[in-house]
Amino acid sequence: MRVLGVDPGLTRCGLGVVEGGIGEPVRMIAVGVVRTPPGDDPAERLLTLQTEIDEWLQRYAPDAVAVERVFAKANIKGIMGTAQASAVPMLAAARLGLPLAMHTPSEVKAAVTGNGRADKAQVTAMVTRILKLKVAPTPADAADALALAICHVWRGGAQDRIAQALARQKAAYAAQAAAQSQRVAR
Amino acid sequence: MRVLGVDPGLTRCGLGVVEGGIGEPVRMIAVGVVRTPPGDDPAERLLTLQTEIDEWLQRYAPDAVAVERVFAKANIKGIMGTAQASAVPMLAAARLGLPLAMHTPSEVKAAVTGNGRADKAQVTAMVTRILKLKVAPTPADAADALALAICHVWRGGAQDRIAQALARQKAAYAAQAAAQSQRVAR
Repeated sequence: MRVLGVDPGLTRCGLGVVEGGIGEPVRMIAVGVVRTPPGDDPAERLLTLQTEIDEWLQRYAPDAVAVERVFAKANIKGIMGTAQASAVPMLAAARLGLPLAMHTPSEVKAAVTGNGRADKAQVTAMVTRILKLKVAPTPADAADALALAICHVWRGGAQDRIAQALARQKAAYAAQAAAQSQRVAR
Repeated sequence: MRVLGVDPGLTRCGLGVVEGGIGEPVRMIAVGVVRTPPGDDPAERLLTLQTEIDEWLQRYAPDAVAVERVFAKANIKGIMGTAQASAVPMLAAARLGLPLAMHTPSEVKAAVTGNGRADKAQVTAMVTRILKLKVAPTPADAADALALAICHVWRGGAQDRIAQALARQKAAYAAQAAAQSQRVAR
């Protein structure tokens, strides 16, 4: 399973692609950051981000996209730009029919460090270790994008399996209930 | 000058197209609202909105796009969805190379009613009168989109002329300064 992680932002947008699955090592395919000048027109900045993300999707052909869920409460300054930036990978995933997941910062931190309140240095250190990188990815946005993608491989994969198991169980119950109601009806 | 006004939102996104200029009556070309179900996947909702806005841009070929500027402080619930929705017309305008303006709610209210704190009913009443409509546009989001477009025809046109005048003046000053520095250099 190959996942593109996106840490949305207009000034810096982290992008990271990892590949892996449940019970197998996760490896890094690509990492980077898209920067757009704060003085530029916001719409032009969004378009630059869209062009870059479209290129990454075409080049790395991920199976899923994971985007950091942005909260209105955190970091009120610049939050509108971040929210608008998050719309770009969401639209791209929907257009391509790719599964999209939104993970909260604490879900990502908990997934890679075991601590939902880990700081940026801890996240970067664990991402470097998990992906067996020789050099820590910088800036923090790039490391965060990789952490998101790792989180998705681990959580997303598990969630998909849980969802499938629940669907099977639900179908079994429905079949059982139908059989019982048929017996009652007789 | 033909303007598409967009009152961004995921549950209801108002769209309005008007045509007019400084010193000539403004007339309505089209008005509508795009609705997406709150229970649907947010990325799918954004994609539906994008598809509709792209259709409007193609059908009505506006010269400019005016979008309501969303603030983080107002209406914290749903603000992220509204911010993400506002990215859709911004991206579309940038992609098509159309001039884009973001007007604040109070700028729009002041432009159409003369009062920056006018309520929704006053805005709708003035939009109905300005555009000489027989029936008031509903819902409020549709009226707001028309108000945005009217505001842009009036303010945007004036702003463009001011910007052009300033650019001419700046060029004149620059030419003068260059001539002076040449004289000094001699």
